[in-house]
Amino acid sequence: MSPSADTDHSERGYIIPIGGAEEKLNNPAILDRFVEVCGGGSARIAIIPTASKLEDTGSRYETLFRKLGIPHAQVLPFITREDCQSDQYLDVIEAADGVFMTGGNQLRLSTTLGGTPVAQLIRRRNAAGMHVAGTSAGAAFMPEHMIAGGSEGSTPRPDMVTLAPGLGLTNNFIIDQHFRQRDRLGRLLTALAYNPFAVGIGLDEDTAAFIKPGDSLEVVGSGGITIVDPRDLEYSSMDKARRGQPVSLIGVKLHILISGGRFDIAARQAFAS
Amino acid sequence: MSPSADTDHSERGYIIPIGGAEEKLNNPAILDRFVEVCGGGSARIAIIPTASKLEDTGSRYETLFRKLGIPHAQVLPFITREDCQSDQYLDVIEAADGVFMTGGNQLRLSTTLGGTPVAQLIRRRNAAGMHVAGTSAGAAFMPEHMIAGGSEGSTPRPDMVTLAPGLGLTNNFIIDQHFRQRDRLGRLLTALAYNPFAVGIGLDEDTAAFIKPGDSLEVVGSGGITIVDPRDLEYSSMDKARRGQPVSLIGVKLHILISGGRFDIAARQAFAS
Repeated sequence: MSPSADTDHSERGYIIPIGGAEEKLNNPAILDRFVEVCGGGSARIAIIPTASKLEDTGSRYETLFRKLGIPHAQVLPFITREDCQSDQYLDVIEAADGVFMTGGNQLRLSTTLGGTPVAQLIRRRNAAGMHVAGTSAGAAFMPEHMIAGGSEGSTPRPDMVTLAPGLGLTNNFIIDQHFRQRDRLGRLLTALAYNPFAVGIGLDEDTAAFIKPGDSLEVVGSGGITIVDPRDLEYSSMDKARRGQPVSLIGVKLHILISGGRFDIAARQAFAS
Repeated sequence: MSPSADTDHSERGYIIPIGGAEEKLNNPAILDRFVEVCGGGSARIAIIPTASKLEDTGSRYETLFRKLGIPHAQVLPFITREDCQSDQYLDVIEAADGVFMTGGNQLRLSTTLGGTPVAQLIRRRNAAGMHVAGTSAGAAFMPEHMIAGGSEGSTPRPDMVTLAPGLGLTNNFIIDQHFRQRDRLGRLLTALAYNPFAVGIGLDEDTAAFIKPGDSLEVVGSGGITIVDPRDLEYSSMDKARRGQPVSLIGVKLHILISGGRFDIAARQAFAS
């Protein structure tokens, strides 16, 4: 899916990918900020646990959001594609201030929600102002081009990443998570080298990008975000490299940002604070 | 890249993916129809040979279009990303009625043109009425989600296809080519099963889909087009399958269309003629 129509940038909601393993008890900065963005204590938050195989993932976040002062947090248990037709669940998203997608396997999100009324409604509501956060698999699922899997390492190889269509909330960024913890620079570079039009966001654990309307972003959390900008790429051997061979890339720009850091997508410019 | 803005459907140009090996001498039905769509003998056609490693691919098509009655056919030799900044070449696309992308390797197109002014201009001009045709690799490159490679066979497996961002002229279709000749149903099904929102088009050799403004399509050529529509997919095991294992899909709709056949994307309906 392509990003939903966004006729008035000032009205689009935040897109908030989180690198996984966000702090939940002591100073949960990311979740606190998400709650604040959604409007505080009166906010209505819909939790989508589809990525997870564990039955209690949704209810654990429900309890967590209640502890953070949100009485109106509700789990929507989309397990089958048929569940994604339910008017009752669609009504909850229609009235929500924010959606939160849990971790697990991003292919479970795309195969279950893809092309259903739920995916269409989240896209439409985000374009109209509803905020969407996702952690780990929930973060990977957000952009148009989703990293579905891949292998570790810093040097790109042509067969290092598996891309699949995601939810399509943004096409300006490709998102990877557990970034430093799982040595994923190579697979993010590979994804970008295929077609150097997007900007890569590598999210460390307990670190989030709050992507504002207009697509600038701000970093929140205890780790770093690696911004990979291939716009001025001078040379790439991606089209010549064989399976398993390293790929040469010349002219990629890299920024590492920590809490408070910002990146402006239009100007392709990073700021430390 | 997401499909370029298309505020008035009636003005968008045709998108014409060709399955490769189109007839060039005796009754070249596809190329004749492309010339006709572009306005006949006075049409200006820009040829992009970037996918090909052979030096004479562009000039061979130039000669071919001249034989078909088009004096204003011109090769634009985009070899490096720097070439894609050339005002002289951009002016040719600005004035063109049609663009024709040759075969070769689609990753050469995406790594060379991706994110450059050439890609942006083709997207913008196609939205404003310029027609874009591509054969083999040139066809694969057209949609938002491009099949970059994969393996043969009819049964989908999770690791059977490599997707990468394409030119983004349409996000309604995923395109595969040399379809019957190279046994590619499995990899197209795999690409669609990741996220069942798009429709698959499997193009046999010497067969083209003339995709009209509004995204209905008509078949031209000597082979068939396999339309794969996963909208009503009831079940998919894609998220559970391991590498190399077969994937179960229940409820995929398939149409095989030959010359004169049509498919309406909005209604998801096929017509034999």
